[in-house]
Amino acid sequence: MTTPIPLIPAGSLMARLKETCPEDWRAYVEHDFVRRLAAGSLPEACFRHYLAQDYLFLMHFARAYALAVYKSEALDDMRQAAATLDALINAEMGLHVSYCAGWGLTEADMAAVPEEPANMAYTRFVLERGLSGDLLDLLVALAPCVVGYGEIGARLLADPATARDGNPYGQWIETYGGAEYQEVARAAVDQLERVAARRIGSDIERSGRWPSLAATFGAATRLEVGFWDMGLAPPG
Amino acid sequence: MTTPIPLIPAGSLMARLKETCPEDWRAYVEHDFVRRLAAGSLPEACFRHYLAQDYLFLMHFARAYALAVYKSEALDDMRQAAATLDALINAEMGLHVSYCAGWGLTEADMAAVPEEPANMAYTRFVLERGLSGDLLDLLVALAPCVVGYGEIGARLLADPATARDGNPYGQWIETYGGAEYQEVARAAVDQLERVAARRIGSDIERSGRWPSLAATFGAATRLEVGFWDMGLAPPG
Amino acid sequence: MTTPIPLIPAGSLMARLKETCPEDWRAYVEHDFVRRLAAGSLPEACFRHYLAQDYLFLMHFARAYALAVYKSEALDDMRQAAATLDALINAEMGLHVSYCAGWGLTEADMAAVPEEPANMAYTRFVLERGLSGDLLDLLVALAPCVVGYGEIGARLLADPATARDGNPYGQWIETYGGAEYQEVARAAVDQLERVAARRIGSDIERSGRWPSLAATFGAATRLEVGFWDMGLAPPG
Amino acid sequence: MTTPIPLIPAGSLMARLKETCPEDWRAYVEHDFVRRLAAGSLPEACFRHYLAQDYLFLMHFARAYALAVYKSEALDDMRQAAATLDALINAEMGLHVSYCAGWGLTEADMAAVPEEPANMAYTRFVLERGLSGDLLDLLVALAPCVVGYGEIGARLLADPATARDGNPYGQWIETYGGAEYQEVARAAVDQLERVAARRIGSDIERSGRWPSLAATFGAATRLEVGFWDMGLAPPG
Repeated sequence: MTTPIPLIPAGSLMARLKETCPEDWRAYVEHDFVRRLAAGSLPEACFRHYLAQDYLFLMHFARAYALAVYKSEALDDMRQAAATLDALINAEMGLHVSYCAGWGLTEADMAAVPEEPANMAYTRFVLERGLSGDLLDLLVALAPCVVGYGEIGARLLADPATARDGNPYGQWIETYGGAEYQEVARAAVDQLERVAARRIGSDIERSGRWPSLAATFGAATRLEVGFWDMGLAPPG
Repeated sequence: MTTPIPLIPAGSLMARLKETCPEDWRAYVEHDFVRRLAAGSLPEACFRHYLAQDYLFLMHFARAYALAVYKSEALDDMRQAAATLDALINAEMGLHVSYCAGWGLTEADMAAVPEEPANMAYTRFVLERGLSGDLLDLLVALAPCVVGYGEIGARLLADPATARDGNPYGQWIETYGGAEYQEVARAAVDQLERVAARRIGSDIERSGRWPSLAATFGAATRLEVGFWDMGLAPPG
Repeated sequence: MTTPIPLIPAGSLMARLKETCPEDWRAYVEHDFVRRLAAGSLPEACFRHYLAQDYLFLMHFARAYALAVYKSEALDDMRQAAATLDALINAEMGLHVSYCAGWGLTEADMAAVPEEPANMAYTRFVLERGLSGDLLDLLVALAPCVVGYGEIGARLLADPATARDGNPYGQWIETYGGAEYQEVARAAVDQLERVAARRIGSDIERSGRWPSLAATFGAATRLEVGFWDMGLAPPG
Repeated sequence: MTTPIPLIPAGSLMARLKETCPEDWRAYVEHDFVRRLAAGSLPEACFRHYLAQDYLFLMHFARAYALAVYKSEALDDMRQAAATLDALINAEMGLHVSYCAGWGLTEADMAAVPEEPANMAYTRFVLERGLSGDLLDLLVALAPCVVGYGEIGARLLADPATARDGNPYGQWIETYGGAEYQEVARAAVDQLERVAARRIGSDIERSGRWPSLAATFGAATRLEVGFWDMGLAPPG
């Protein structure tokens, strides 16, 4: 029997970024929204609110990956970011639309929903960080989302305490815990490592840039917490 | 006796943008935070919280004006934006620091304050709108702040109901209602008009771009409302 | 027998942009480099020089389309630009590499070639125009290349005077004159029209923005002339 | 008697960047255009051509400093870049205009001059490098100009072989060799050092980013050579 390679290997840049803000990270990945997804006890209104905002979120995340293509210095980075962009606007947004249809939300519904401030804060922070900084700043701002959802999905899927029978959020858990998304998250962990080597070098934590990267990662993680908070507070 | 020229002339682009979201605009300029400033009844903790966030806000607004310089196609637009940038980082931020000192807030205090999500949402929205769009999109995103503060200041200063004697917020009202700031706001109204003529033409409301400009203006106005809400809810 | 729809319909935005700089346009599409391609008389050293620079050019053009995705306000514009990006980095650059291999140029050769100033001037002008302006400015800067190559290809392919037997540049002509590329060029003509309607409206030539758009188009056209000039002057 | 501190101290980042492309650097600072300025033998048509292009150049360089303000993470960097921006658009462009007037060139003349490809290549390369990279990439792209002119000016001013009596280019030499400009260049050398420490750390040449920084510096230096070449080849 082989031990699977963990999504976030010890000593990887992603692991070290998480260690700079352990409480924020826990507040994110173990958020009440997540617990209730696992238990199947999340009110449907909360999930629908989250789904509708997530549609707008995905569009801005696709724009962030387009920006990553633009900011790449190497063809392999361009290709990886372009593949993620393609997956987002051609596959994921379509899946999202059909998944939402199952919850009674049409694409027109979602396009008509006003963007919540917590959503704007997160997406615009990421985009603006990418524009004012370089590719590494952008990837670090994206990491809590891309990799964090992978960590959450894998944990919930493996956890025997996760409600399975009749859990209305079972498909969400299977999507992010499943092999396909795990591969996406893993590729993001690797790209972070590779781009950091190119943009800084081998001794990243001793770099003058480390405090700035940690600040970006921490801010993005707290904005994820705000996104879950928003999910728990549907309007009206 | 002459009638002064109003800050926002009827028919100006600024006036027409306000007319696209009258309720949001009223929620902003007549916000409870503003009423209590005028009455002198705003709790000090709220004002201090607002001031500390405003320091971070000013820094990002200065960055937005730098972006406006970069995005200008004409030398006069470059010069106007550069003058605002200079005023922000050399005069206003200094004034802000000395004003805050009077409230017991040091520059180090302010630099150490965590940026509130409402602050991030607003500043990053403006910057990102400017980067993804053109100079006009950026100026429209900036207008609710620059011109709105002028409208609020002038109204409070002229209103006989505004508390004067011993109002701890008297200086704030005098700053934004005073001649110097009114000139800044007026110049912003004019620049909006001039840049819209260059980037669209004479019939702006019939332009295909009008819905997008109105959406930007409305979003920025609602983010101003969120900024006042944040002011009323200091941490701890 | 039906008359085919012309690539650049009379009255289209593309047609009107061409009319603002007819001499520059002619200097570009009827350049000596093009004439010699058609006649099969272009010295091989010129073509190889052009091909090697074109590889670098394609990479920056892919980055420009990534920027167009980022700058899109509508999902259909995002998707169209993302499809072009995908075609460029996954199909065209690969085709270019295998085509170049037929001319004895390896991918390593091309990556090692110093970028010519004429190449830098063109690609960076387009990217910077897109960043300082909006999506329409970017698409107008891209149009002379995307649509112009379509016009050249179609004309050479249809022209009975074009050398066919043993013309070493026959494949180049077939590529750009062929149905697949004609579709790409046509989609670019349409997108220009659609985005101009969104960003300006119906009366584009009377818009205050027309001189700036015409200036961008003219500059990009002259930079295409410079690119052909560069092709005719291989180093050494 | 004290030895003055050299503009580019040994071991400074600027010195090490120069060492990555010694031949290109020499081709730039010892260019024929420079030699003839020193000798007073440069044809007037060449100088006038250079001056007219330099006016457009300064405008784009001012935009690059505005971008540096936007991309700054620290208030001191914002202030330094804003001071340079202010100097460029309020002092230098004015001086340039009055200086050019002495050569019979009006501001209207200069605004009407078509931008040369060598000018576009350089300015757009710098701006685009700054947009796709971070503040350090931008400052490295700006360094050959800002610091190089300081090195040239100081050398010509100190060189006994420089023609003094009746040299029509004496004022140019005094401007760039004079104390005021030397201070500007020195501040740029220092800022490069400070920002590199923040964005990389102490061991810059062993950083994974060094090849990219050296490539940017070399490209900008060669584009300066192209700018002098352009000066020597006035149209018509």
